Amino acid sequence: MTAFNGYKAVEKLRELVQKPVDLSKEGALTTKRLEQMVASALNFKLFYGTECINEKILSGLFELALEAGAVKKMRAMQNGEVINKIEGHESENRMVLHTAMRDFFDRQTETEAAKQATTLAYAELEKLKSFLDQIEKQGFTDMIQVGIGGSELGPKAIYLALQAFSKPGRRVHFISNVDPDDAASVMQQVDLSKTLVVIVSKSGTTLETQTNEELIRKRFLAVGLSPTNHFLAVTGKGSPMDDPSKYRKSFYIWDYVGGRYSATSMVGCVILAFALGMEKLLEFLKGASAMDKVALEEDPYKNLPLLSALLGIWNHNFLDYPTTAIIPYSQAMSRFPAHLQQCDMESNGKRIDRQGHTVDFWTGPIIWGEPGTNGQHSFYQLIHQGTITVPVEFIGFLETQYHEDHTFKETSSQQKLLANLFAQSIGLATGKKSDNPNKHFPGNRPNRVLLAKKCEPYTMGAILSYYENKVAFQGFIWDINSFDQEGVQLGKVLANKIIDQFAKKNKGEEYEKDFPLGAVYLDHLKDL
Amino acid sequence: MTAFNGYKAVEKLRELVQKPVDLSKEGALTTKRLEQMVASALNFKLFYGTECINEKILSGLFELALEAGAVKKMRAMQNGEVINKIEGHESENRMVLHTAMRDFFDRQTETEAAKQATTLAYAELEKLKSFLDQIEKQGFTDMIQVGIGGSELGPKAIYLALQAFSKPGRRVHFISNVDPDDAASVMQQVDLSKTLVVIVSKSGTTLETQTNEELIRKRFLAVGLSPTNHFLAVTGKGSPMDDPSKYRKSFYIWDYVGGRYSATSMVGCVILAFALGMEKLLEFLKGASAMDKVALEEDPYKNLPLLSALLGIWNHNFLDYPTTAIIPYSQAMSRFPAHLQQCDMESNGKRIDRQGHTVDFWTGPIIWGEPGTNGQHSFYQLIHQGTITVPVEFIGFLETQYHEDHTFKETSSQQKLLANLFAQSIGLATGKKSDNPNKHFPGNRPNRVLLAKKCEPYTMGAILSYYENKVAFQGFIWDINSFDQEGVQLGKVLANKIIDQFAKKNKGEEYEKDFPLGAVYLDHLKDL
Repeated sequence: MTAFNGYKAVEKLRELVQKPVDLSKEGALTTKRLEQMVASALNFKLFYGTECINEKILSGLFELALEAGAVKKMRAMQNGEVINKIEGHESENRMVLHTAMRDFFDRQTETEAAKQATTLAYAELEKLKSFLDQIEKQGFTDMIQVGIGGSELGPKAIYLALQAFSKPGRRVHFISNVDPDDAASVMQQVDLSKTLVVIVSKSGTTLETQTNEELIRKRFLAVGLSPTNHFLAVTGKGSPMDDPSKYRKSFYIWDYVGGRYSATSMVGCVILAFALGMEKLLEFLKGASAMDKVALEEDPYKNLPLLSALLGIWNHNFLDYPTTAIIPYSQAMSRFPAHLQQCDMESNGKRIDRQGHTVDFWTGPIIWGEPGTNGQHSFYQLIHQGTITVPVEFIGFLETQYHEDHTFKETSSQQKLLANLFAQSIGLATGKKSDNPNKHFPGNRPNRVLLAKKCEPYTMGAILSYYENKVAFQGFIWDINSFDQEGVQLGKVLANKIIDQFAKKNKGEEYEKDFPLGAVYLDHLKDL
Repeated sequence: MTAFNGYKAVEKLRELVQKPVDLSKEGALTTKRLEQMVASALNFKLFYGTECINEKILSGLFELALEAGAVKKMRAMQNGEVINKIEGHESENRMVLHTAMRDFFDRQTETEAAKQATTLAYAELEKLKSFLDQIEKQGFTDMIQVGIGGSELGPKAIYLALQAFSKPGRRVHFISNVDPDDAASVMQQVDLSKTLVVIVSKSGTTLETQTNEELIRKRFLAVGLSPTNHFLAVTGKGSPMDDPSKYRKSFYIWDYVGGRYSATSMVGCVILAFALGMEKLLEFLKGASAMDKVALEEDPYKNLPLLSALLGIWNHNFLDYPTTAIIPYSQAMSRFPAHLQQCDMESNGKRIDRQGHTVDFWTGPIIWGEPGTNGQHSFYQLIHQGTITVPVEFIGFLETQYHEDHTFKETSSQQKLLANLFAQSIGLATGKKSDNPNKHFPGNRPNRVLLAKKCEPYTMGAILSYYENKVAFQGFIWDINSFDQEGVQLGKVLANKIIDQFAKKNKGEEYEKDFPLGAVYLDHLKDL
């Protein structure tokens, strides 16, 4: 039996779900309910009165958190316990210390392991500061980050979210896909003599990244520039990429920081500091660290990431809703849902628990989303009237970033944006009756709203940490290992086999006979 | 009883699903199977041997298509029958004629209605050509399209897909979100004196679009430029926007072209022709029209959109998989999944059938996706080892767009990209056994692969039409109306109520007492 299905609280919640809450009933969603169901931490408010819950269900969820030792496990993680493992089976056996990458702000570090990780991380930050001081007057205008997965998604999502605060004259670009058109399109936009290139790969051996690096190096050489003056490495100490003959500077990352949790390590810091400056980078890290401390709160009403994790578990494991939409009402956050897709689905898309048992319940949901109000003109039809209920996590801000707000018909654009967010939150919950079945909205579609003042570095750091810790909490409660990714290996192995066949073909040799499956596809390429 | 559940073929398929196909079994996925299960049309191949089907299931699905009159209904749609309606209830009562927007290439038009729509569409195309000729030497470098939903998603996705073929010195931008930071960020990148602005709204009254238009008009006036020289309208004839005193030129769209199907109308044509030139635009339209004709094929092996629709119905309604991932192995197609999110979810996210009955089966799935190989480093963990099966539709191309391919370790980047695509397709189907439960891949995860030679205008038009027609076929078979969107109304109504409250506040008045729900959110804004 899996731990999750053995919890008394799970049994209790299964009973409670027999009498579900119906927010579409007359009088179910009241002002009083909305006013009571708001939790606060830092400069955030989390409105959850539009979730399909009541006080009993909340109590059950809080019991579940206690029974699963959720906060205790969070403390263990932040203290550097070896939690990235599967009992009794070969596994990564590592600490999980991305929180140490930003723990520079009045924390009393509890363990030597965490303390050491923080010290090492701070040394990289100092290296970065001195490097940026050194190049300040050298006229670099562009930085290209070459990396894939966590080396691209988080840094890019956060850069776009904070682009409004960029230093004048600095632009950044990302190349991730092995698709050669990705690199070609970026290379058209930059003056190489004024461009720095950051290659990001912990192992120093990621296929896509190596391929793109080679391509870009050739471009520099072709115009008579020495790549060594322009290329930086973000990699593990001692990796094939930790090589001063090839890179102007190496910045280190460690195996206790997973790719999808690496945005606050040098994977994100180098490019964010180039774009925003060190001061804004530090604000970003400070926000993330502050939310890490919130995640250690025992009281679930103060622990926003835990509260959100529990509401998600209710929707997913008890109401049986397979997906979660994340919808920021902020164009700047347009790529944040894509980052959370990795952070959440790679962490919790697992089929065994930490004891190696095949799970008999749903682990991580499918995460997707686009910014509002755009989504309203796209997939909201299904969210309001479709046959599969989609829980929604809204994110909103009181103020604009550029302060170029515009008043049209007596209200500002930002007010219209917020009005739409609130309207959707309420409309999804209450629905609307109509005699015309096509104009009938069933309602009772759960959602919650995370509100902050403004999408700026501190706030964005805190939102990142809020989600990282929400994902970790769900993994703790499901008793799965959220920190490995064995599921990506099979594709790599098979791809390499097919690549070998292409190489044979390129040399004029025959495909191997014992590789029939790939060969069918390869054969068909001839007639296209 | 709904029509769908009354079909004999549905009963038969429900029996067949009791003995499901298991592709992870030794010997289930053979070369022979993969070679047999390939369908072709135009310059496309659709590989479906990695779907969880067999010959019996395929026959059942083909019977379903016949029983539901899928191809007959497609013909009726393309001929301009009034199919956008719900029997016995107030509804839009319109023809659905987006296919007429591109039916300029050797079609024997069957009805007067379709013929007239094509004639009108062609006249707009001629207007567009003469307008572009007129401005050819006027030095315009940038075009900003202001529109939301279908006025942005399709045109933007297609522009990005074909950006490699842009005319030198021409750039295009999109502003959609009412978030003022969206417009601010675009306005920083253009020289207004060399910029044309296309405002797209069929009704001429879309809130987000009006707001952004006002904001941009003020910018032009502030620098002494007359908006009338720079602004174009794409709108319904006679709408408030059809006004020569405000727009240099108006291009028309009609109520029989839905927003999410409007990429081949002037909604997409103006900006695509500005960016790519008329010749490439025509190739794009030609590809779309060619695939429309494929969608009229009676033989499902030749009718790729129908075949794909049927496979999707098998996965969704019989195997009960709630979502579909669309994964193009092409960075250029990065926004195409977002376009399909609208096209599919707004069309088929419905809860009643065309007779007004509440449906007792799943209508449209949740559509999501990101380009490969990027996704491999993100959400593929869940796809391979998660607890919710995700059917995948892969899209791939033999050649690059920029022809700047790069050989590293004996194979080109494009070959690596394709090798990854094929590897994922096979790996998801076969899985891989392991004694370590964390390295065990259950397999039997259905997917199909659409392959073409190169992502270029003709091909991209055909892919667009392939998906538009796939979505329509699923709607026909479910007997729902895929062409209205009543589900977006409630949010609009509620948002306008909250906007009224903001307007009161801006004038120093009190919120209305009878609007308590919105007021809770509004009140909390004060303390943030």
